Amino acid sequence: MSDAIARLLSPRSVAVIGASADPKKTSGRPVAYLRKHGYAGRILPVNPKVAQIDDLVCYPDIASLPEVPEVAVVLLGAERAHLAVKELAERGCAAAIVLASGYTETGEEGARRQQQLVQAAGSMRILGPNTIGLVNLTDGIVLSPSGALEMDHFPVGGIGVVSQSGGILGSLLSRAAARGIGLSKLIATSNEVDLELADFIEHLADDPATRVIALYVEAVRNPARFRAACLKAARAGKPVVAFKIGRSEAGAQAAVSHTGAMAGAERMYDALFRQVGVIRAQSFSDLLDIPAALATGRRLRGRRVAVLTSTGGAGTLVSDDLGVAGFETPAPDAATAQALRALQTGSEAVLDRNPIDVTLAGLRPDLLRGAIRALLASPSYDALVIIVGSSSLAMPELLAGAIQDCLPDSDKPVMAYVSPHAPEIGALLTRRGVPAFAAAESCTAALAGMLHAAGFEAPADVAAAGVPVDAGDLPNGSLDEAAAKAVFARFGVPCATERVVHDAREAEAAARELGGRVVLKILSSQITHKSDVGGVAVGLDAATIGPRLPQMASEVEARAGVLPQRFLVQQMVSGGTELILGLHRDALGTAVLLGMGGVTAELFQDTTLRLLPQQDGRLLPLGRADALAMAQSLKTWPLLDGFRRRPKADVAALVDAIVAFSAMAAQLGERIVEAEINPVFVLPEGQGVRAADGVLVLA
Amino acid sequence: MSDAIARLLSPRSVAVIGASADPKKTSGRPVAYLRKHGYAGRILPVNPKVAQIDDLVCYPDIASLPEVPEVAVVLLGAERAHLAVKELAERGCAAAIVLASGYTETGEEGARRQQQLVQAAGSMRILGPNTIGLVNLTDGIVLSPSGALEMDHFPVGGIGVVSQSGGILGSLLSRAAARGIGLSKLIATSNEVDLELADFIEHLADDPATRVIALYVEAVRNPARFRAACLKAARAGKPVVAFKIGRSEAGAQAAVSHTGAMAGAERMYDALFRQVGVIRAQSFSDLLDIPAALATGRRLRGRRVAVLTSTGGAGTLVSDDLGVAGFETPAPDAATAQALRALQTGSEAVLDRNPIDVTLAGLRPDLLRGAIRALLASPSYDALVIIVGSSSLAMPELLAGAIQDCLPDSDKPVMAYVSPHAPEIGALLTRRGVPAFAAAESCTAALAGMLHAAGFEAPADVAAAGVPVDAGDLPNGSLDEAAAKAVFARFGVPCATERVVHDAREAEAAARELGGRVVLKILSSQITHKSDVGGVAVGLDAATIGPRLPQMASEVEARAGVLPQRFLVQQMVSGGTELILGLHRDALGTAVLLGMGGVTAELFQDTTLRLLPQQDGRLLPLGRADALAMAQSLKTWPLLDGFRRRPKADVAALVDAIVAFSAMAAQLGERIVEAEINPVFVLPEGQGVRAADGVLVLA
Repeated sequence: MSDAIARLLSPRSVAVIGASADPKKTSGRPVAYLRKHGYAGRILPVNPKVAQIDDLVCYPDIASLPEVPEVAVVLLGAERAHLAVKELAERGCAAAIVLASGYTETGEEGARRQQQLVQAAGSMRILGPNTIGLVNLTDGIVLSPSGALEMDHFPVGGIGVVSQSGGILGSLLSRAAARGIGLSKLIATSNEVDLELADFIEHLADDPATRVIALYVEAVRNPARFRAACLKAARAGKPVVAFKIGRSEAGAQAAVSHTGAMAGAERMYDALFRQVGVIRAQSFSDLLDIPAALATGRRLRGRRVAVLTSTGGAGTLVSDDLGVAGFETPAPDAATAQALRALQTGSEAVLDRNPIDVTLAGLRPDLLRGAIRALLASPSYDALVIIVGSSSLAMPELLAGAIQDCLPDSDKPVMAYVSPHAPEIGALLTRRGVPAFAAAESCTAALAGMLHAAGFEAPADVAAAGVPVDAGDLPNGSLDEAAAKAVFARFGVPCATERVVHDAREAEAAARELGGRVVLKILSSQITHKSDVGGVAVGLDAATIGPRLPQMASEVEARAGVLPQRFLVQQMVSGGTELILGLHRDALGTAVLLGMGGVTAELFQDTTLRLLPQQDGRLLPLGRADALAMAQSLKTWPLLDGFRRRPKADVAALVDAIVAFSAMAAQLGERIVEAEINPVFVLPEGQGVRAADGVLVLA
Repeated sequence: MSDAIARLLSPRSVAVIGASADPKKTSGRPVAYLRKHGYAGRILPVNPKVAQIDDLVCYPDIASLPEVPEVAVVLLGAERAHLAVKELAERGCAAAIVLASGYTETGEEGARRQQQLVQAAGSMRILGPNTIGLVNLTDGIVLSPSGALEMDHFPVGGIGVVSQSGGILGSLLSRAAARGIGLSKLIATSNEVDLELADFIEHLADDPATRVIALYVEAVRNPARFRAACLKAARAGKPVVAFKIGRSEAGAQAAVSHTGAMAGAERMYDALFRQVGVIRAQSFSDLLDIPAALATGRRLRGRRVAVLTSTGGAGTLVSDDLGVAGFETPAPDAATAQALRALQTGSEAVLDRNPIDVTLAGLRPDLLRGAIRALLASPSYDALVIIVGSSSLAMPELLAGAIQDCLPDSDKPVMAYVSPHAPEIGALLTRRGVPAFAAAESCTAALAGMLHAAGFEAPADVAAAGVPVDAGDLPNGSLDEAAAKAVFARFGVPCATERVVHDAREAEAAARELGGRVVLKILSSQITHKSDVGGVAVGLDAATIGPRLPQMASEVEARAGVLPQRFLVQQMVSGGTELILGLHRDALGTAVLLGMGGVTAELFQDTTLRLLPQQDGRLLPLGRADALAMAQSLKTWPLLDGFRRRPKADVAALVDAIVAFSAMAAQLGERIVEAEINPVFVLPEGQGVRAADGVLVLA
C-alpha cells in the first residue's frame, strides 16, 4: 500500500487518459504541466482522436500503451472514467487519479457511479474522484491541471499539504509560492473513495523531504486511522497543522439530549485534534503561516519575545498582538541592554524597552547583526521578531543576509514582520529561513503554533482498560433515575444515598433512616424533566416529607397526566460545586463531556470534551491525566481550585469519577444511547463527589 | 482654525526648512516627492549650505524667503526646530509640520523641548512633532519623507486616514496602493502638540472627497473633542473606523476598587467607540478592509449573503467564516433558483444551495452577469460575495467588467474573495468598485463593519440632566455602608430596608420591626471586606439575632483587631438576580459599569461600561435606552429575561436604577472617588430592585 502511494507521488511513467493537445483546455494541461515543470519520466497520453501531443506519441486506448504505466491521470467524465479505471487496473497500473466530478457530491446517481468506480479499481489505488490531483515539488512531478501550475517556479521545502478540496490546493500552492514558502508535496484527496487523509499523513510522516504536514480538512471520514496517522507523525517529530471548515454549522446539528445540545460536532474536532497533537489553524492564512514557522526546525521554549525594530509603530503593533495572545515582551536584561548600547546606535535609539528600537541605524548590516546576536544570546528571550520598515526596502539582500548570518548562532525562532507592502522582501526572507509575515496576527499564530508543537507529547501506544464490570444483567431502554445511578455506581461513580419508596409512610421511614435534610423526587422513566411538572422537592425531613408526597403526586398528575407510583428519597447534597458529566457521540467517536453546572455556566457553555481512545476497534477509558486536564480546561476551574477563598474541591475524587464514567462508556460502547449525570456535586477536599441525578438509555 | 487645516492640507506654497539636495536623504525626500507627485504650488527650500535643488532656488534662511509660505515642512533636529518654528510663526505661516523626534517620547528633556516648541509656534498651527507629515492624494500634494512615496501611483479615493504613528502611515499608504484602495488624505498626528485626531476627523467630515475616515489610534488625548468630532462625522454620514493598539496592556493597570479590576482602560475605549459609532477594526488589516467596503457607498441592510463561485472549496471557506460571525447564507428562493437555472450553466452547477456554484461556466461574462443580476435582484439576499478562482485569472478584465456592469442595478454590497495568489486581479476589482479580499475574515469584517455603520444613529446633541439632588451636606471620605446606601437612595436607587443598631436588644427590635428573615452585618468604614472577618450573618430572625450579635462582635475582634460598635440589620432580599453597579474613571472619562454578580459571572468577567456624555465640560447622566442596552449587552442577560423558565426580572426598575446611579455620578462628578453597589438585587417583574451593599468614597 505504502509502495503504491510512493509510486503515485513519484511515478516513473504516467498515462494521461483523455489528454487533449490543446494546453489551454483542462484536459490538455496535465501533459503540458508535466513537461513545463520538467518531469523526467515517461508521459503516455491516451486519446483516440489525437495522434501526437507536441512531440509525444498519443495512444488510441489503454490497451495500446507500450508499457504498463505506474500511474494514470484519468481526465474522462464520470460516465466513462470507470471504464478506463477498469482497464488500467487490469493492466496492473499502481494508482489512478480520477479528476471527474459528478459522484457522491451530486446525489444518488453520483453515489452509484462512485460505487461502480470502486469496483472497477479492484486493488488499484484511486486518488479522488473529483480531485485536482497532486503536486510533488520535491521531485518536480505535477499530476494536476490546476491553473496555479501556470507559475514558473515553486520554492521547494519541507511542508507537505493534504487537502480535501481541490480548489484550495491551487490556492495554497500559489500563495505559498508568492510568499517564498517551500512545499514538498500537495495532494487533493477530495471524495476519498480510496486514498484518504490518513494515507498521506502516514506517508508524509515517513517522507524525508517533509518536516511539517498541513491539512485542509472538510470531514475526517475515518477517525481511528486519522488518529493513528497523526500520532505517527508526532512520534516522527513532524507537527501536523490543520484548518478545518464547517465551524459554523456546528450549532445547527439536532441535539437529542442536553449534553448533545452543548457539544457540537465542531467541538469534537477540537477534542480530536487536541488529543492527537494537531495544531488547529484558526484562519486559512494560518495554514501556511504556522507551517512556515515550523518548517524552519527552530524551537520555541517559552513565551518571551524580543521585537527588534527600526520604526516605531509597527513594533508596537506586533508586541500588542503578541500580548493579547499571552506572549510576553519583557525589556532587555542589563547585560543585553549593555551589549545593545555597545553597538552605538545613536541617542534616539530605545534600547532599554521592548520593542527594541535601533532607529534607522538598524539599517547598517553590522549593527543589525550585532543587535540580533545580542538578542538571540540573551537569556531573557525565547524568540525574535524583526520589523521590516519602509526604509529597509532599498536593501533587501543586505537585510536578509545580515539576519541569515546570525541564524546558526541559536535555534530560537527568528521571524519578520513586513510593515509596508513589500511582498518581494518577505519572500526573500522566508526563502532564507526567516519566515516573514504581513500581519501581526500571523507572527502570533506562528509562535503559538510553535509553542503548541513543542509542548505536545504523543501518548504511549497502549492505554490500559481496567477489569470489566459485570454488566450482563443490564436491561435495555430508558432506565429510571434510581436504576441509572445504580449502573453509574456499579462502574465506580459515587452517587447520593437514596431509597425508592411508594407512599408517605415509606418516605418517612426513608427520611428517618437517611437523617438530615432530604430530597423527594418522582421516579419515572417516562418523565425526564421532573422539576417542570412539580416532581422535585428539596429541604425536607422525616417530619415534612409525609404530607408532601401526596401533594407532589397530585400536582404531577395534574401537570403530566400520570399519577406517579414510585418516589425517590435522597440525601440532600450541599456545599459542593455542581458539574455535568455526560457522553457525546457522533461520526468522530465517543466523547466524555464535562461541564460546569448551574444556569450561569450554561449560558457560557463552559464544557469540554475528550474522545475515548480506540485500539483495534475497542474503546478505551480516559486516563487520569486526561480527566484532570478536562477539569482544568473549564473556564470555571477556579471554582474547584479555591477561588475567592472557597474551599478546594475534591478534584482527585472528580478525576476518579470521570475515569469511572469513561470506563463505563468504553465497556458498554454502542449499548449506551445516552448517559448523563447532572448534577454531580464535587464536595470539598476529602469529601468526594456525589452523582445526584442522571439519565441512562441503553440499547 | 479650520482654515489653517485646509491650508495645511492644500497649501499654495510650501517652505522646506533644512532641505537637502540629495533625494536619497530623508531631508532631501520632501522636495523630491513634492515634485515627483506633481505638486503644482510653489516649493521654497531653505538651507544655508545649498544654493539650488534641481532647478529650484534654495534660500539661506527663512528671513530670505521671497513670500510667506502657507505651510512649512521643518526637517531640522529637535535642538533647532523651535527656532525655525518661531521665525515661521513671526512671518505669518499658517502651519508647520515638524518631523524631528526627541520630544516627550524620549523623556524629561524632550518634554521641555516640546514645551519650547509650543511657545515658539504661538498661533501658528503645528502638525507633530515626531510626525512623518501628510499626504493629500485628492489634490496630489505630499508633505512627507515617507519611503512609501517611492511608489509612482496611488489610487485616489474616498478614505481619509489619520494615524498617531508615522511609520504606520507609510504602511497604510503602500498597502492601500497595492490593493487598489483609493485614499483621499493621510495625516500622521504623532505627538499632537497642537493638531490632534479630532481636528482632522472634523475636517474630513467636511471634506467632499472623503466618504470614510480610518483612524490608527494609540491614545485619545482629548476624549470630549474626539467624541464631538466622531458624532459630527456620523451626522455627515461618514463612518469612522478605528484600529487601536494597546489592547494587551489593559490588564496590567493597577486597580483600586473591585470595579476597577473588572474594567480596564481598553474596555473604556470599547465604550467610547461604541457610544460615538466608531467601528472598531479588530486587526490592522481590517483598518483598510472595512473602509474599502464602506467607501463604495453601498448599503447593507441585513445578514443574508449570497456566495457565488465557480470553484468549490473557496466558496465554502467564505460561507463558513460568515457563519461564524452570525451572517446567514440561505439557499436561493424558488424564483432566484429559477432565474439561475435559466442561465443554462450545465448539469454540474449547484444552483439550489449557497454557495451558488456555477462551475467553470461562470467564466462566461454573459452567464456571470446573469447570475450576479439574479442574486442582486433576489429578495433573499442583502449582499453578494463573488469567489475568484484560479480559472478567472486569465481574464481579469472580462471578469471585472462583467461585475461592474451589474453594480448600478442595486446598492447592495458586492465584494470579491480572491482564492489564489492574484493581487493584480484583486486591485483591479477594487478599483472598479468591487472591494476584493484575500482572506475570508476580511470579507466578514467588511460586511460586519457595513452592518455596524448602517445601524448607528448619532444621538441627539443635547442629553437632559435632571433636577439636581440636594447634596450640599454630604460628608467627605469613606462612608460606611448605611451612609453610602443613604446617598444612593437619595439619588433614587432603591435600597434594602435596614436599621442601624448598637447591641443585641436593638437588633432584636429591628428584626421584629422588619419582619421575616434578616441579615446582620457589622457597620464600619474601615473594614471593607466584612465577610472575610466574619462580619456578615444571613437568614436570622428576631429570635436568633440577639445571641448572634455578640458572637459576631467577638469573632470580628479576633480576626480584625477591632471590636465593632455598630451593626446593620437588613431585610434579607431573595429571589432576585445579583448585579454589580459601579463607576470607573480614567483618562477617557467617567463610566458606569454594570456586571452580573456571583462568583461564576465574575470568572467570565461579564461586565459592560458606558461613558457618561459630556457637554461644555459637564457630565450628563445616561439615557434610559443606554441603560437598557447595557443590561442587554451582558452575556447573562437571559438570566434577567426569563431564561429556562425563570421569572422575568424587573428590567424597568433596573434601568431606573442605572439612570439614577449615573445621575449621581454626573452631579457629584470628581467628588466621587469610588462608588459601587454590590450586589444590587433585581427582583421579578413589578417588584423592583434593591441595593443590598455598597461602597462610596467622596472627596
